[in-house]
Amino acid sequence: MSGTFVIAQGGGPTAVINQTMVGAALEIRKRHPGAKVLGSIHGVRGIRDGNYADLSSIPEDRLRLIAATPSAALGSTRDKPDAAYCEIILNGLKKAGADAFIYIGGNDTSGTQQILTDAAGGKMAFVHAPKTIDNDLEENDHTPGFISAAEFVAGAFLSVDLDFRALPGIYVGIVMGRHAGFLTAAAAAWQLDPDSGPHLVYVPERPFSAAAFIDDVRATLDRHKRCIVAVSEGVSTADGKALVESLVPPEKLERDAHGNVKLSGSDLPAALERALAEGLPGKRARVDALGYMPRGYVGAISAVDAQEAFDAGAFAVKVAEEGGGSVALQYDGKKTVLKKVPLKNVAGKTRHMPDDFMKPGVNQLSEAGMTYLRRLVPEKYKVGKPFV
Amino acid sequence: MSGTFVIAQGGGPTAVINQTMVGAALEIRKRHPGAKVLGSIHGVRGIRDGNYADLSSIPEDRLRLIAATPSAALGSTRDKPDAAYCEIILNGLKKAGADAFIYIGGNDTSGTQQILTDAAGGKMAFVHAPKTIDNDLEENDHTPGFISAAEFVAGAFLSVDLDFRALPGIYVGIVMGRHAGFLTAAAAAWQLDPDSGPHLVYVPERPFSAAAFIDDVRATLDRHKRCIVAVSEGVSTADGKALVESLVPPEKLERDAHGNVKLSGSDLPAALERALAEGLPGKRARVDALGYMPRGYVGAISAVDAQEAFDAGAFAVKVAEEGGGSVALQYDGKKTVLKKVPLKNVAGKTRHMPDDFMKPGVNQLSEAGMTYLRRLVPEKYKVGKPFV
Repeated sequence: MSGTFVIAQGGGPTAVINQTMVGAALEIRKRHPGAKVLGSIHGVRGIRDGNYADLSSIPEDRLRLIAATPSAALGSTRDKPDAAYCEIILNGLKKAGADAFIYIGGNDTSGTQQILTDAAGGKMAFVHAPKTIDNDLEENDHTPGFISAAEFVAGAFLSVDLDFRALPGIYVGIVMGRHAGFLTAAAAAWQLDPDSGPHLVYVPERPFSAAAFIDDVRATLDRHKRCIVAVSEGVSTADGKALVESLVPPEKLERDAHGNVKLSGSDLPAALERALAEGLPGKRARVDALGYMPRGYVGAISAVDAQEAFDAGAFAVKVAEEGGGSVALQYDGKKTVLKKVPLKNVAGKTRHMPDDFMKPGVNQLSEAGMTYLRRLVPEKYKVGKPFV
Repeated sequence: MSGTFVIAQGGGPTAVINQTMVGAALEIRKRHPGAKVLGSIHGVRGIRDGNYADLSSIPEDRLRLIAATPSAALGSTRDKPDAAYCEIILNGLKKAGADAFIYIGGNDTSGTQQILTDAAGGKMAFVHAPKTIDNDLEENDHTPGFISAAEFVAGAFLSVDLDFRALPGIYVGIVMGRHAGFLTAAAAAWQLDPDSGPHLVYVPERPFSAAAFIDDVRATLDRHKRCIVAVSEGVSTADGKALVESLVPPEKLERDAHGNVKLSGSDLPAALERALAEGLPGKRARVDALGYMPRGYVGAISAVDAQEAFDAGAFAVKVAEEGGGSVALQYDGKKTVLKKVPLKNVAGKTRHMPDDFMKPGVNQLSEAGMTYLRRLVPEKYKVGKPFV
């Protein structure tokens, strides 16, 4: 395998996806001197269009600087190739003379690699290297990108809780995540003490009721004089509809090319603001979406996450040498270990947050959930307890 | 002046307002051993209600930990006392046996100190110590709290620009600030190169036109394939109305106790999203409010800002000894220097961003604006230029 390696980045960027790309590129350069390393521009679109950055020739110090830079330096894509599109990709890879294709992304990306593996019939190695702030890949204890995103979210809620101690009111922070609640749960990682926010955490794994939400907020205000809430943008009502569908008039709902309701944007914050204004009139309430900050804020890159992402990229080269598969970050009880797992175990599947990570019947993290978070997102900043 | 000092914190919290409080408390303890140092809880409300934390007796290491903690540890208030309320405060201060009152806040806070000075007739020293992320105090080159907030905003826009290189589209980030554009302008501080966002910056000092905004965004998309926009929540249309008033139906507008239109919340993001969807149909567009993050994100506290805020608190004690006044951070051409200035020079006034900080006729920072930002918010993170 001294020939040609293609690397691409797919889906939403993360703070450390470039570590994985550079980890793979440098490992190829080390283990396969003389090999061509092509970085496909904008995910599989670059393969389709023959548009590559030559990663073989770029000085290592420039690559290492890019590794430390958030977001996907090769560009990314939301394309989810079907069989026909995969045929085009396969032809593109053949044209480039590729022996292996390492695609860094989430469960859609591993799905693409599964289709390509089946179509290529063993003539090329297809590797999926994990990446997602959602932390929702099967076979993984956690995924590269999650820890940095979780640190941002934990820091955001610690900061907002301190802010609302000074000027009390209701704060609702909306966190990215369509199906898995891990990132929203991370809001609780750095709670100062039992009086600290987030006092309420709503994850997609549990049905959301607007009436119960108002009751929860009211009870929290009575107890803590303020109420800090973390809501996943993917929360659904008991009928399985996304919350935004229940709160926003149908003619105003936006849908993407796949028919999925658009969760981002200001519809959900506006709807929750209205619900709070009606349910708790006269109370100071602020609803913000954390937006894109968790997935790539330059000031919240975890060193552990960066190293794990780099190592996952390097490990992907070994998986390519062995014929392909998916790289998984597993936990052996003491440390994170890298494993090769079959693509089909990850492809198109969603790992949900275990039910016992939340207290039964209460929208708060359980001890099991906090143990997981404390291991991955240990306290990073020393803060003093305010007088209020 | 060996007697009693009262310290309070007013207005919106910042990342370093506790530095100023602790700087003052420790300086009093050093220069006036045996003096009582009372921290009023929730600004002037604590004086009204006789509610204090005893800052004389708290171990220095706990105070230093609080200093490094964002938000106002004594609690804050939005109360803007009139003459009658000031009479109540004055009586409260007399009851506490206060010789001096150091109030940390913005221009409203210095206004309160001005009224109290006039009412007390020289029997007590009233000091205003500056604090505001808006950077809008007269007599100051910049204000404690601004640099940390500006670093967060600069980092946020650097990060979002990298994100939108990977997945192109339109991004609008709404930044706090009713009257002064400094913090929104800080979005440009860490631009990587002339191709980098924010490509458009809208500040309250310049009239905003929704039609021109759409034209600007369209032209930027043509040139850069993406468009990153920073908008101050305080931008106004040519008729002097807040933008949110022009875009939101009157019956939906929220106003505060002072009759000011509520700028925060999701009305403005929702309205800008609608304007983009109508003006540039089919384009991917995301509008987010940065919300509370700039004023107290635990991961974006500037060491320079922290030190200056601490020093301003210590200097406030000297100003108290001299009979009162306002502490100002000025620039002598080489470094920041602390000066005592009359309260009336600051009280109730708003410093706007100089007109020449923006290019004429273009919504971008000028060289003069960039020079100011680069001095206060120098590059903090090394990032590599992406391939896209």
